[in-house]
Amino acid sequence: MSTAEVREAYTGRADEYISLLGSVADMHELDRELISRWAGRLDGPALDAGCGPGHWTDHLRRLGHDVEGVDLVPAFVARASERFPEVPFRVASFDDLGVADAALGGVLAWYSLIHLEPDRVAPALDEFARCIAPGGTLLLGFFDGARVEPFPHKVVTAYFWPPSAMTERLEAAGFTVEEVHTRAEPGSRPHAAVVARRTN
Amino acid sequence: MSTAEVREAYTGRADEYISLLGSVADMHELDRELISRWAGRLDGPALDAGCGPGHWTDHLRRLGHDVEGVDLVPAFVARASERFPEVPFRVASFDDLGVADAALGGVLAWYSLIHLEPDRVAPALDEFARCIAPGGTLLLGFFDGARVEPFPHKVVTAYFWPPSAMTERLEAAGFTVEEVHTRAEPGSRPHAAVVARRTN
Repeated sequence: MSTAEVREAYTGRADEYISLLGSVADMHELDRELISRWAGRLDGPALDAGCGPGHWTDHLRRLGHDVEGVDLVPAFVARASERFPEVPFRVASFDDLGVADAALGGVLAWYSLIHLEPDRVAPALDEFARCIAPGGTLLLGFFDGARVEPFPHKVVTAYFWPPSAMTERLEAAGFTVEEVHTRAEPGSRPHAAVVARRTN
Repeated sequence: MSTAEVREAYTGRADEYISLLGSVADMHELDRELISRWAGRLDGPALDAGCGPGHWTDHLRRLGHDVEGVDLVPAFVARASERFPEVPFRVASFDDLGVADAALGGVLAWYSLIHLEPDRVAPALDEFARCIAPGGTLLLGFFDGARVEPFPHKVVTAYFWPPSAMTERLEAAGFTVEEVHTRAEPGSRPHAAVVARRTN
């Protein structure tokens, strides 16, 4: 979906979304563990790219990290700033994260690439790579699938991605994939997470 | 491998194995989280089937569970009993776990089916199903692979299993697979874990 379409779709449902999915306590324990573990190995500031309601950004801050949250949707940034006043949030898109080259130890992009049309994922990964220092890492969460294909996500069209296809895109952007995690459970769409290191 | 071959292979290397892999602190954080989470939902006693050095058995006991560890290898049972005197351990094989029908809330079989010749996995799952009460669960950990195939594990031949093939065997034994987790990381063989509920 276009940036404008995604922004509009979430703007109209920001409060509903926050009440359903805006709290770390409601997140999967294994996701909390994975994200905490990833963050524990960061060397340098972190960016929560596509932070939505800001719960993971706040989680990273509570763990002691220097972290900022950015989101495309002004309503999320406003609400996140109210909810977590100690965390800096601002509006930004994946076209330009507003971060200096190689300034970051890592980027968390947790379910924030899911609505991008597949050919827009590569430019977003290039922007992450630009901002991450060599040796830094990217943690991606997304919907696992056998093929890159769209499905009617509740808010706006989203895409399944096989970890192998995401790995190809990451390698093209200068990352080396270090970890691939998948999870399938009843009542949830298949989940994947990838940790990739910026190597060149 | 035959029961006798596996017993003999581990007996000769029990101390080495314990020093390398006998501590929960050395286990993967995500495995600890998954096993703890699985145990937290048990209703009834647990059995750690193929407990080896007993570290996961002790972990479950520390979490407050009624748990017993069994292993094929007397040297493991002896050392586990010394290391964790508050936990009951005994020698048993997957042919007969020495537990009454439907007596258990759950069985942990963490990397303990890995050396079985593939056609010996089904009888072991049948024995787990016999011991687990309806509604109880089995947590399996094993080496993930694209095909069921052997590889030269350090101690004695082991097998990769695709989660889909393990799911088929579990369903045939009266289980319903509820969770499938996989993990790929550098320096480790691909990992899979499955939570299956005894449903019929």
